[in-house]
Amino acid sequence: MEGRERIAIEAVSPQIDCGRFAVQRIAGDEMVVQADIFSDGHDEVVAILLFRRLGEEKWQETLMQRLDNDRWQGSFLLEEQGVYQYTLMGWVDHFRTWQRDLQKRFQAGQEVSVDLQIGSRILEQAAKEANAGDAERIRQAVAALGKASSQGDAVALGLDAALSDLVSTCCARGLATTYHKELTVRVDRQKALFSSWYELFPRSLGEPGRHGTLRDCIALLPDIEELGFDVLYLPPVHPIGICKRKGKMNEETAGPDDPGVPWAIGAADGGHKSIHPELGSIEDFRALVREAESRGIEIALDLALQCSPDHPYLKEHPEWFLWRPDGTVQYAENPPKKYQDIVPLNFETTQWRELWEELKSVLFFWMDQGVRIFRVDNPHTKPFPFWEWLIAEAKRKSPEVIFLAEAFTRQKIMYRLAKLGFSQSYSYFAWRNSKRELTEYMTELTRSDAREFLRPNFWPNTPDILTEYLQYGGRASFMIRLVLAATLSSNYGIYGPPFELCIGSAEPGSEEYLRGEKYEIRHWDRGAPGNLRPLIATLNRIRRENPALQRTNNLIFYETDSDSVLFFGKTAKDGKGSLLVAVNLDPFRVQTAKLRIPLELFGILPGQSYLLHELISGERSIWQGEWNSVRLDPQVAPACVYRIRTWLRREADFDYYL
Amino acid sequence: MEGRERIAIEAVSPQIDCGRFAVQRIAGDEMVVQADIFSDGHDEVVAILLFRRLGEEKWQETLMQRLDNDRWQGSFLLEEQGVYQYTLMGWVDHFRTWQRDLQKRFQAGQEVSVDLQIGSRILEQAAKEANAGDAERIRQAVAALGKASSQGDAVALGLDAALSDLVSTCCARGLATTYHKELTVRVDRQKALFSSWYELFPRSLGEPGRHGTLRDCIALLPDIEELGFDVLYLPPVHPIGICKRKGKMNEETAGPDDPGVPWAIGAADGGHKSIHPELGSIEDFRALVREAESRGIEIALDLALQCSPDHPYLKEHPEWFLWRPDGTVQYAENPPKKYQDIVPLNFETTQWRELWEELKSVLFFWMDQGVRIFRVDNPHTKPFPFWEWLIAEAKRKSPEVIFLAEAFTRQKIMYRLAKLGFSQSYSYFAWRNSKRELTEYMTELTRSDAREFLRPNFWPNTPDILTEYLQYGGRASFMIRLVLAATLSSNYGIYGPPFELCIGSAEPGSEEYLRGEKYEIRHWDRGAPGNLRPLIATLNRIRRENPALQRTNNLIFYETDSDSVLFFGKTAKDGKGSLLVAVNLDPFRVQTAKLRIPLELFGILPGQSYLLHELISGERSIWQGEWNSVRLDPQVAPACVYRIRTWLRREADFDYYL
Repeated sequence: MEGRERIAIEAVSPQIDCGRFAVQRIAGDEMVVQADIFSDGHDEVVAILLFRRLGEEKWQETLMQRLDNDRWQGSFLLEEQGVYQYTLMGWVDHFRTWQRDLQKRFQAGQEVSVDLQIGSRILEQAAKEANAGDAERIRQAVAALGKASSQGDAVALGLDAALSDLVSTCCARGLATTYHKELTVRVDRQKALFSSWYELFPRSLGEPGRHGTLRDCIALLPDIEELGFDVLYLPPVHPIGICKRKGKMNEETAGPDDPGVPWAIGAADGGHKSIHPELGSIEDFRALVREAESRGIEIALDLALQCSPDHPYLKEHPEWFLWRPDGTVQYAENPPKKYQDIVPLNFETTQWRELWEELKSVLFFWMDQGVRIFRVDNPHTKPFPFWEWLIAEAKRKSPEVIFLAEAFTRQKIMYRLAKLGFSQSYSYFAWRNSKRELTEYMTELTRSDAREFLRPNFWPNTPDILTEYLQYGGRASFMIRLVLAATLSSNYGIYGPPFELCIGSAEPGSEEYLRGEKYEIRHWDRGAPGNLRPLIATLNRIRRENPALQRTNNLIFYETDSDSVLFFGKTAKDGKGSLLVAVNLDPFRVQTAKLRIPLELFGILPGQSYLLHELISGERSIWQGEWNSVRLDPQVAPACVYRIRTWLRREADFDYYL
Repeated sequence: MEGRERIAIEAVSPQIDCGRFAVQRIAGDEMVVQADIFSDGHDEVVAILLFRRLGEEKWQETLMQRLDNDRWQGSFLLEEQGVYQYTLMGWVDHFRTWQRDLQKRFQAGQEVSVDLQIGSRILEQAAKEANAGDAERIRQAVAALGKASSQGDAVALGLDAALSDLVSTCCARGLATTYHKELTVRVDRQKALFSSWYELFPRSLGEPGRHGTLRDCIALLPDIEELGFDVLYLPPVHPIGICKRKGKMNEETAGPDDPGVPWAIGAADGGHKSIHPELGSIEDFRALVREAESRGIEIALDLALQCSPDHPYLKEHPEWFLWRPDGTVQYAENPPKKYQDIVPLNFETTQWRELWEELKSVLFFWMDQGVRIFRVDNPHTKPFPFWEWLIAEAKRKSPEVIFLAEAFTRQKIMYRLAKLGFSQSYSYFAWRNSKRELTEYMTELTRSDAREFLRPNFWPNTPDILTEYLQYGGRASFMIRLVLAATLSSNYGIYGPPFELCIGSAEPGSEEYLRGEKYEIRHWDRGAPGNLRPLIATLNRIRRENPALQRTNNLIFYETDSDSVLFFGKTAKDGKGSLLVAVNLDPFRVQTAKLRIPLELFGILPGQSYLLHELISGERSIWQGEWNSVRLDPQVAPACVYRIRTWLRREADFDYYL
């Protein structure tokens, strides 16, 4: 124990669960760290932020700045993907303390010759502890102090700011306090934060009567590119079980032509490392990944760690399943509901290590085919330690890998999964419709600790979720939810064909699509009248062109006088690139609202006019003042996305004296 | 690593700085612990709270209850002073999960014979893991299940709640998750939370012309007892330095009769372990402690770890001080101010271990004289690790010891000292005068994390602090501040004689008393007209008689229609003993205010009348309804302390059928 460590370091942020989990950031981000740092007494304090890439031995360091109320801040650049560590150190700065007191004494007219000698002593001690170059500079300062022609000159030399900067950091740190934890930050590539997903069932891509294939998928890529999506997510592409296969509309028995549910994985043709024969071959899959990549699109695969009763694992590894006393395998249940076509893996098996290794080999197999994005099916039904291990293993193989957690479950479980390493998370967005719901939910996501570890991905629909808002709201409701998803969250996606076509027919009293594509092959006429393709393409272009839409935590809500109009801004790092978005949440009625424009954000003076560029329609207008009206017709354009341009003010440059 | 640990334990509270510091409680308190506890999937969870006294090997345990949103709560009794540890454990409860699902299946009319077999299997496994007695009971249950005459009977047997309680806790916990930290709670005696302090200078107790003594102090004890105080705090009682001694009103040179500042400790007569000869002998001191104790009063000593230039330490241990290049010792300074009569100890000395041991011996010396309460002078100018060590050592010697931190400094430093182990802390109370200031400050103290580790002690004045509110507010302002201190905070104190006499004369432009008693002997006529002795005695009696005033965190603010009237409640554990306090904060004007009485707190129905007992005046009145008016005349009675009594309602007992 060192009883002279006088610095306390508290309330270090960001920090998740006392440092148990890493915070998440994107390569290129500045990592800003704050802490309460203070000493007993009244001495000056110096604090540094230490950081390094995981695995490096040597720490880099940067001086922290004091804010107010003993709060300090420092930052460093997260240059690359991977894991960084950071911690803090602080110590009492005797030289700065001496400078501060010397100045006060001298200003009060006191005699300071002894104080100047004390200063020289501190410098001499620092010179002993410094490296050769610094020591030389410090000794020169001591010499200059000694030769000063007056006390005033000596004081001026002693108060040199460059000198204190030098002495602060080069002195020995024997009595420094090091924060007792090394905190971590996981740095992902930009796509973890900014991505536009399109989901489709490849088997529906054939002409009527023909099972769609991965080659059909390749043929569709130009279309996806035109829509502006950069992630194409496919439900499981593996062989589908035959035993207990579900029929259309989730009927308990399948007809001879029913294709089954893609999530009932595994049959005689193979399991999680095989391609369903009717979709094509592994070569076709590789071609799809390659072709997509050439168009700036990544293929996201579904990682659904469960089996059909026909999966080869049941015979090869019966120890990975639960067997009932009657000799049958335990299928999935949510009593009294039964899902006989799905058999869960028993993660409580004593053979869990072998099971984990096998599942890792599945993941690695697809990574070896070039897949870098995985949408993970129901991760909340597998043990937390498994995900922490699996994601860490995958990131070790390739730091580029991205996992989207499909966990529609209790909030704390969703948060836990994000902390364990999932790069993105499905959210409750689909069920947040009113202004209050959206405001509260976005505030939770972007202002609570969740902002540090959870990146939401907003889906207005999925093959499992056709919300009542969309069932009853008609085409306008699809436009509204599309704009909200694409502008509130930098990660968003749609279950494409039925969304484009504003399909709102559900099974009665449920959120299940009528004639759901999970159970049967559907043929979509994607060019049908009223489709949303132009709006989708426009929104995706706006997202690409505006960095303000490529982050989520930069959201700010602004005032309107209407409960039906949501008005918010996404701020850009430079301020000028900030966007404003107004959305009519009412799919049935035209809403007129007054918006309170945050003039200060754009540097607009009161009374000054400014140019408004509405990016969806392309229309321009000139507004002035804080409060301005907007009319939003849900049938035509339920939303406006504004870029604001202020006029140059040249008066200052005129020469009125000419 | 055990990959099957499925439980997550998060957000455990209370918990200070990730468990770095203990929370504070009082012997007899129930220790309530909450946490987020959940598993993957949908299985039932069981959670227990583990606790033990520090030093015990074996943990005791108690089942936690699920609140909502995956929050759990458990509690245990803190029986004695000392340190307790607590932690948590959770595991998946397969038997309860089976019960829950069995019930759903059976209610849905499903055939459950296989499920019943599964239940028997779980029970058989539990029996293998249980102790002999439990195992027998479980096996009996299995046998009964097997012999049930119908499936319905078997289901009823399987759903037995007593059976699940038994199986939940007796089963093997191989896959249980234990929280990764052992948290601590420091348990003090009640006086740490409820104490009434009186400060005086014994040297002023003699007749004019004679130096007061400890024997005079003994003679005054009946008076202190009559006033109702239970802690008598004395400024340092040690020899006072002569070299550089300060004169009256802090003059730089003392006259021949000036007694010096008691905090300038040490002279030829001795240092921190000696009694100033003019005060008496160590025997007198021991007699004072003993006599006080017999009247229910504890003597609190001042622990001021600094020296006069005459302190024997300077010669015996020059290595404990800072020496200037001119050979003089470094005295205390706050540049450009100089305090030449005080020499600080240099805690950065390489001989810090010896210094710490010597200071501990000082503390132990006074503990050996029977002192159990110390008011620590300026703890914020000594290193944090020193206090953590010293307080722990003292508590090891006697868990009864109480330390009051006199740290009027930045908030985070005050908080740090409390975390390190100080039992009570001076506060900013003296400077919080308006309704808003008081409300915000009390909310911070009683609703933030500070409530877990900091016990405020409210002093309206001290020998260093005569606030402007008291300087200008006259006698009414003293009454107001007295009532606030004694009712807002369960720990409070006054610097007695000048407070009783409503002395408001200060040095111009400062908070220093005019003719401050720190620098000279004063003779107070404590019976002078207008003294506050009756009010003080009444308030201390009310505090003793009402447990609601013996805690601080039970404060709730209530509504009034006046910005000049503060209205609050202190709730009792049983509700009925709750008190309401209304204080006119304006010392110059009568204020009338409407108070919103929290009827629900007292179980009063709308429209029902209730009896109001005002405890200061003893007056009784009958009120009804929520809003009632009060008139508070600052010259007469600026405050009311209400006890409320509801009428018994006997209707329910009448027999209307007679």
